[in-house]
Amino acid sequence: MNYRMVFYNIGRILLVEAALLAFPAIVAIIYNEKTLISFALTIAALTVIGLPAVRKKPKKTAIYAKDGYVIVAMAWILMSLFGAMPFYFSGHIPSFIDSFFETVSGFTTTGSTILRSIENLPKSLLFWRSFTHWIGGMGILVFVIAIMPKTESSSMHVMRAEVPGPTVGKLVSKLRASARILYGIYCILTAVQFVLLIAGGMPVFDSMVTSFATAGTGGFAVLNNSIEGYNSVYAEMVIAVFMLIFGVNFNIYYMFLIKQGKHALKNEELRCYIGIVIGSVILIAICLANTKYSIGDSIRYALFQVASIITTTGFSTANFDTWPVFTKIILVFLMFIGACAGSTGGGIKVSRLMILVKSGLRDIKKAINPRSIETVKVDKHTVDEPVVKSVSVFFATYMIVTAFSTLIISIDGRDLVTTFTAVLSCMSNIGPGLGAVGPYGNFADFSAFSKLVLSFDMLAGRLELIPMLMLFSPYAWAKKYS
Amino acid sequence: MNYRMVFYNIGRILLVEAALLAFPAIVAIIYNEKTLISFALTIAALTVIGLPAVRKKPKKTAIYAKDGYVIVAMAWILMSLFGAMPFYFSGHIPSFIDSFFETVSGFTTTGSTILRSIENLPKSLLFWRSFTHWIGGMGILVFVIAIMPKTESSSMHVMRAEVPGPTVGKLVSKLRASARILYGIYCILTAVQFVLLIAGGMPVFDSMVTSFATAGTGGFAVLNNSIEGYNSVYAEMVIAVFMLIFGVNFNIYYMFLIKQGKHALKNEELRCYIGIVIGSVILIAICLANTKYSIGDSIRYALFQVASIITTTGFSTANFDTWPVFTKIILVFLMFIGACAGSTGGGIKVSRLMILVKSGLRDIKKAINPRSIETVKVDKHTVDEPVVKSVSVFFATYMIVTAFSTLIISIDGRDLVTTFTAVLSCMSNIGPGLGAVGPYGNFADFSAFSKLVLSFDMLAGRLELIPMLMLFSPYAWAKKYS
Repeated sequence: MNYRMVFYNIGRILLVEAALLAFPAIVAIIYNEKTLISFALTIAALTVIGLPAVRKKPKKTAIYAKDGYVIVAMAWILMSLFGAMPFYFSGHIPSFIDSFFETVSGFTTTGSTILRSIENLPKSLLFWRSFTHWIGGMGILVFVIAIMPKTESSSMHVMRAEVPGPTVGKLVSKLRASARILYGIYCILTAVQFVLLIAGGMPVFDSMVTSFATAGTGGFAVLNNSIEGYNSVYAEMVIAVFMLIFGVNFNIYYMFLIKQGKHALKNEELRCYIGIVIGSVILIAICLANTKYSIGDSIRYALFQVASIITTTGFSTANFDTWPVFTKIILVFLMFIGACAGSTGGGIKVSRLMILVKSGLRDIKKAINPRSIETVKVDKHTVDEPVVKSVSVFFATYMIVTAFSTLIISIDGRDLVTTFTAVLSCMSNIGPGLGAVGPYGNFADFSAFSKLVLSFDMLAGRLELIPMLMLFSPYAWAKKYS
Repeated sequence: MNYRMVFYNIGRILLVEAALLAFPAIVAIIYNEKTLISFALTIAALTVIGLPAVRKKPKKTAIYAKDGYVIVAMAWILMSLFGAMPFYFSGHIPSFIDSFFETVSGFTTTGSTILRSIENLPKSLLFWRSFTHWIGGMGILVFVIAIMPKTESSSMHVMRAEVPGPTVGKLVSKLRASARILYGIYCILTAVQFVLLIAGGMPVFDSMVTSFATAGTGGFAVLNNSIEGYNSVYAEMVIAVFMLIFGVNFNIYYMFLIKQGKHALKNEELRCYIGIVIGSVILIAICLANTKYSIGDSIRYALFQVASIITTTGFSTANFDTWPVFTKIILVFLMFIGACAGSTGGGIKVSRLMILVKSGLRDIKKAINPRSIETVKVDKHTVDEPVVKSVSVFFATYMIVTAFSTLIISIDGRDLVTTFTAVLSCMSNIGPGLGAVGPYGNFADFSAFSKLVLSFDMLAGRLELIPMLMLFSPYAWAKKYS
C-alpha cells in the first residue's frame, strides 16, 4: 500500500471538510447561535490534523485499487467522526456515538435519526445535518477530484469505489471534467428545487435544507413530522418530482446536455425505474383508496411515499407503518431495489435488479435448451459475464451482510419487523423503516453497539460493500500485497 | 418436445402412485376404516388414466433436458392432484384446494398443514399424509428409475431435475445402480429409526409415520402439538439425531459403504453443516437459558429445533414463536440455508451458501488486487465459474420468487411476519413459520388463491425452481424449440 498517498489524500479531504464547515458556521453567525464555537473548534481540529498531511506531496503518486478503497473507507469514517463534533461539542447530542450515528446517517444520505425531536435544534446544526446529505450525495471524493487543480489518472480507483452502480459509466473516462459536469448538474437541480419551494411559500431556510436533503436523497427534515408538517400539496409534489429526478442516473442528464436526449430516453434502466414507480404508485393507491383515504389523497400519498422510498430519500407525508400489509411489502421491496446506478440514491439499484432478473430468465432458457447460447442484454448490448457474476455475488453479499447485521441487532430484543427494517433502511440508506423505526419513530432506543453496527451498514450500503468489508479482510492488510 | 415420451413417463409414475396407495389402503383395512373406498377410488382413477399412457412404448425414446423438466414438473403436480383425492373423497378435508395443499405439502416434504386438528383423522389418512413425505423425500422419479427394469441414458435429465443441490454428484453417473443404492440407504435408515422409536415406547403406528416424516424431512406429525405431545426426551433425541442424519448428503453414506469413510468426513459441506448446527444450538441455548428455561431444557429445545429447522423437517417440541427475537432470527436464517445438497432436506442448501460466501470473499480479494487470479474452492477443488454463477443466480431467483409470493400472499392482509415466514416456510419446505403459521398455528386461514400460490412455492422449492418456473416460460412451449 502507498501509505503516503493514502495520508496525503485523506489530509486533503479533511481540509475540504473544514472548508465546508464554514457554511454552517456562517449560519450560526447569521442566527447568532452559540454553536459557532463548536464549529470553530471542529474546523480548527480538522486543519491541525489535515495540514501536516498535505504539507508535501509524496514522490510516488501511483496508487492501486486497494489504496483507492482504503482512502474511500477511511475518508468516510474520519469525515463522520469529525462531522459529529459540532453535535457533540454543542451538547445538543450528548452521546458521541449518537452524534457519530447522526453524521454517518447524514453523509451516507440515509436520514435515520437518533433524535426524538428535531425542532428544538439550533438552525446551524439543522443546516449542517442536511448539508451532510448534500455533500455525501454526490460523493466527497468526486468533489475533491472536481475542485483539485491536477487530477492523477489514479483517481479512477477512488471514483470507482465511491460512485454507485455495477459499472462506472463512460462519463467517468475524463475524470476531472466529468466530476465538474456532474457537480454542475447537481448544483443547478438543487437550485431549481430551492427556488420552486420558495415560490410555493416555504420559508427560505426550510427550502434550502429540504433541497439539500432531496438532492442527496437523504431525508433529514427540519420538522418533527417531516414534509407532512408543511401540509402543502404543492411542496409535496415539488419534492416528490425532485426526489425522482435525483434518483436517475446523472449520465442521462449529461446526455441531454450534449443533445442526445432522444437516446437517453431509450435507456433501459430509466424505463424500468419509471415503470416500477408507476406500477407501485398504482398498486399502493388502489390499496389505500380501499381504506380511509379518498382517491385524491391515495394517489398523493402513494406517489410521495413511492418516490421517497425508491430513491431512498426517506421523507414522509403519512405514517405508512399503519398502512395495509400489501403496501408495506411493496415499500420494503422498493427499499431493497433503490434508485438508478449513478444517482445519489442507495439500495441495490435498478440496473442490478434488471441484470439479476435477466440472468435468472437466461438460466431458465439455458436449462430448457442447454445447447443454446444466451447472453444477458441491457440496452441491446451484451452484459459481460464477469459483470453478471459480480452483480449476483454483490446481491448475495448484500443479503448476507443484512442477515448478519439483523442477527447482531436482534440482541437488543426489539421486534422482528423493527429489527429487520432498521437494518434494511440503513443498508439501503433510506431513513425510516417499519415498526418502532417507522416514519414517526426514531433510532434512539438501540444500544450503543447496535448503533455502531447500523453506522457500519450505512457506510457499507453507501460505498457498495467492498470498501467497508475490506477493512475486515486480513488479506487487505497483509504486507505481501501492499 | 417428445410428447409421447412425456406421456409415457407420466403414465408410469401415475401407476407407481396407484401401487403406493395400496399401503394406506391396507392400513384402512387393518383399522377397519371407511376411508378404504376413497383409496380404492383413487387407485382406480390412476389406473384408468395411467394404463393407456404406458400401453405401448414410444419408438423415439430420446428426451432432452426440457422434456426432463416437463416430466418432473407435471409428475409432481399430477401426483399431488391424485394424491389429494383420498382426503377429499373421504370428506375429512372438505375443500379440494385444501386437500391439494396438504398433499403438495406432503410430497414436497414441507409439512405445512391446513388442518386445525389432526388427531381426529383416520389412521389410514394419517399414514398417507406421512407416507407422501417418505415418497417425496427421495424423489418419486428416482424411485421409478430404481425399480424400472431398463434405464435409458436420458433418465439423467430427469434425475438432474429432481435431485437437490448445485451439481449432481458422481454417484449419479451409473443411474439405476445409484438410485437403488440411495433407496437402500434410505430404507435402512428409516427402519433403524422406526426400531429405535418403538424401543423407546412410542406406539408402533406413531413410530412408523414419524419415521417416514423424519426420513423425508417432512414434519407431518400425528399429534396436534407435534413431537412435544410424546413428552419423551428419548424420542426427541432419536428424532433430532435422525433429522440431522437425513439432512446429510447421501453420497457421504455411500462413501462409508465403499469404505471411504475417512475421506467422507473431510467433506467441507458436511463440516460446515455440523458447524452451523453446533453454533446455532449454542447461541439459542444461551439465549433460552436467560429466559424461563433451565440449562438442560435450553439445550434440549435448542438442539431439537435447530435440527428440525435446518433439515427443513418442521417438527416442534416447543412454541418457538414465543422465544426471544434473537433465536427467531437464527431460525429464520436456518430456514433459508436448509440442509446439505443430495439430502432429503430443502432450502438453499449449505453447499450453495458456501459457494456464495466464498465468491463474496473472492470478489473482495479481487477488488483489493485486481491482477490476482482467485478461484472459489470447495473440498480443495476449484468450483467451475459457470457453477459459481448459476449458484448466485439461483440465490437471486430464489429471493425474487420469495419476494413476489410474499407480495401476492399479502393481499390476504395478514401481518408481515406471518406473511413472509409462510412463504419462506413453503419455499424451503419446512412446515411451520412464525406468527399465525408458527408451530402452534396452521395455514387454514389463507385464501384459496394464496394456498395455490403457496403450493406453487412448495413445488418450486422442492424442485429447485427451474421445472416450475419453466411452466410459465413461453420459451418452453414454443414450437421452435420442441
